[in-house]
Amino acid sequence: MYRDEDYMRLALNVAKAGSGQTSPNPLVGAVVVNGGEVVGLGAHLKAGQPHAEVHAIRMAGDKARGATVYVTLEPCSHYGKTPPCADLLIEAGVRRVVVATTDPNPLVAGKGIDKLRQAGIHVDVGILKEEADELNRMFFHSIATKTPFVTLKYACSLDGKIATATGESQWITSSAAREDVHRLRAQHDAILVGVNTVIADNPKLTVRIGEQRKNPLRIILDTRLRTPLDAHVVTDREAETWIIAGRGASREKAVAYERRGVRVVSLPTDRVEVGAVLRLLGEQKVMSLFVEGGSRVHDSFLRAGAVNEVVAYIAPKLIGGQDAPTPIGGLGFPRLAEALELDIRRVERIGPDVKIAAVPKRKEEA
Amino acid sequence: MYRDEDYMRLALNVAKAGSGQTSPNPLVGAVVVNGGEVVGLGAHLKAGQPHAEVHAIRMAGDKARGATVYVTLEPCSHYGKTPPCADLLIEAGVRRVVVATTDPNPLVAGKGIDKLRQAGIHVDVGILKEEADELNRMFFHSIATKTPFVTLKYACSLDGKIATATGESQWITSSAAREDVHRLRAQHDAILVGVNTVIADNPKLTVRIGEQRKNPLRIILDTRLRTPLDAHVVTDREAETWIIAGRGASREKAVAYERRGVRVVSLPTDRVEVGAVLRLLGEQKVMSLFVEGGSRVHDSFLRAGAVNEVVAYIAPKLIGGQDAPTPIGGLGFPRLAEALELDIRRVERIGPDVKIAAVPKRKEEA
Repeated sequence: MYRDEDYMRLALNVAKAGSGQTSPNPLVGAVVVNGGEVVGLGAHLKAGQPHAEVHAIRMAGDKARGATVYVTLEPCSHYGKTPPCADLLIEAGVRRVVVATTDPNPLVAGKGIDKLRQAGIHVDVGILKEEADELNRMFFHSIATKTPFVTLKYACSLDGKIATATGESQWITSSAAREDVHRLRAQHDAILVGVNTVIADNPKLTVRIGEQRKNPLRIILDTRLRTPLDAHVVTDREAETWIIAGRGASREKAVAYERRGVRVVSLPTDRVEVGAVLRLLGEQKVMSLFVEGGSRVHDSFLRAGAVNEVVAYIAPKLIGGQDAPTPIGGLGFPRLAEALELDIRRVERIGPDVKIAAVPKRKEEA
Repeated sequence: MYRDEDYMRLALNVAKAGSGQTSPNPLVGAVVVNGGEVVGLGAHLKAGQPHAEVHAIRMAGDKARGATVYVTLEPCSHYGKTPPCADLLIEAGVRRVVVATTDPNPLVAGKGIDKLRQAGIHVDVGILKEEADELNRMFFHSIATKTPFVTLKYACSLDGKIATATGESQWITSSAAREDVHRLRAQHDAILVGVNTVIADNPKLTVRIGEQRKNPLRIILDTRLRTPLDAHVVTDREAETWIIAGRGASREKAVAYERRGVRVVSLPTDRVEVGAVLRLLGEQKVMSLFVEGGSRVHDSFLRAGAVNEVVAYIAPKLIGGQDAPTPIGGLGFPRLAEALELDIRRVERIGPDVKIAAVPKRKEEA
């Protein structure tokens, strides 16, 4: 009655149970089917806790023998914080394993599949691969580049303004759109803003939706340490805060932040370069970064080629004004041919607003 | 089998046959139903030609007797270029007339319905009224205000730019979006741009889609008569062109345009005020105006409260740059509370782009 795609879609949906809570691990779902019936399912819920396959095989119990296991990511073959899932599947006596996509982690990368096949298990790979890759796009990007996946987010009026010419910006979009932003924040390891945004808006940069959860790391780009000591991000202790400064930043000022529990990282350059920030965050296992402004920071990320996804909330308002700031300021691209070309992934109505999510167009294959 | 709404929806769809070609008359459709069968239909196709009811009653022939007539706009009761439709329906012996919406024209305004009722015909009013009002929103606005309905159109990048900081603007949106613009041009009586747009882009402002048709009137706002004499709008004779200038405009220059067939209207003020332009156009029976830029002209219309609909084409591109121009420049509104609040009517994907159509939010009823 059901096809492989149906079971794999179920596994992908089950995987989403761990959304926003598995980093630095990927989202994984598994479904065990025996005699045409689902006999087990599982999701990876948190780093250090059992993998999806473990939960699913446990649930299946004796019925795992001779079963088909659908798993959204190649089972691991190495000893990490938990024993290898490939071994578990072999021991459980499953007959067939269907894998959506292979693991980009060089410690796994096809070895899990090889191990299963060597044990005589039939393995099919690539069912709903695109959906599975999309599900873990942040993880895959981060593993491949050793830098976080960057989502650039902004809210603007229909005529492209993030504030009036006099700087009034709260609020352009609806509460429904702002709630959606909190949902996105929760799906990232860290939230980044520039110091001008801290000075202008004094944002909390926390996830204020649903039950209390661990807030993402807060990162302030602040070359010369101008973050006010009484800013929410310094005083509220709701989340870890790092300030990334330039070489010339005063050591004395840095100590003042550190006394308040804020970490100050001084880069060895005068300016805080986007590339250096991303490498630093990659080393610190930050796999996904939500960049929330301001408009010059967005420009730096854009021109550094460091945007992996754009989420724009567009409010049905006209503000006007040639001096009103726009979502991406700074220098921008002088030529249209240099502009970052995107593919629109989703267009949604959120309350009165429109949300557009887009990713950089893939370069033409050579 | 069919309800009133079904026949009225058919009449509304039939009415659209005249789209872009009936001005200064409204779009009207009529359907004649007898014994549960459609026996006639008609649309008003062009000013001076028969009204929708005439075509439909003719098609019905003898079967009009005892029939129900569905008409999207109240039948006229006065002698204009054609005899009154109310009289025609009475003579044809119809039993019942269903009207979507009443005619705002003070020469009709309920009198058509009264006349039918006095003749013993049963009349129902208000079936699909909202759709019928939407269909003729330009006509209704123009009759009520004696000024044209203004559609403000622009194309911008996802980050709200209409050009790069160096002024490069061709092309931000796709050819599919540009084709859609031609469709919208054809639905308006006139197209308006500022002289800076003529100087920068030398646009043709014609309808280049499908078969050749009558192009809308072209209007250039040009306070000091700076339109180049070799601009397409001056030389190509593809459409009528009017230049609206200020009081101080040189008479000598005006003559140069007039020799080329371009009409120059000098307003009695130093600046070309939007309100005065709209009153002038209203007097000249221009019922709908398509405003295509530039960004300062858009700002003038916005701040004059003269925007009746906004159509934004948003291209999946990021351009950046605080000096890159935006769809609405000029002074804009300094306070967020003054911004023009809109209701989004339609969000569509057009090729790679997104099209958002919105209308000003109705003020809360007192």
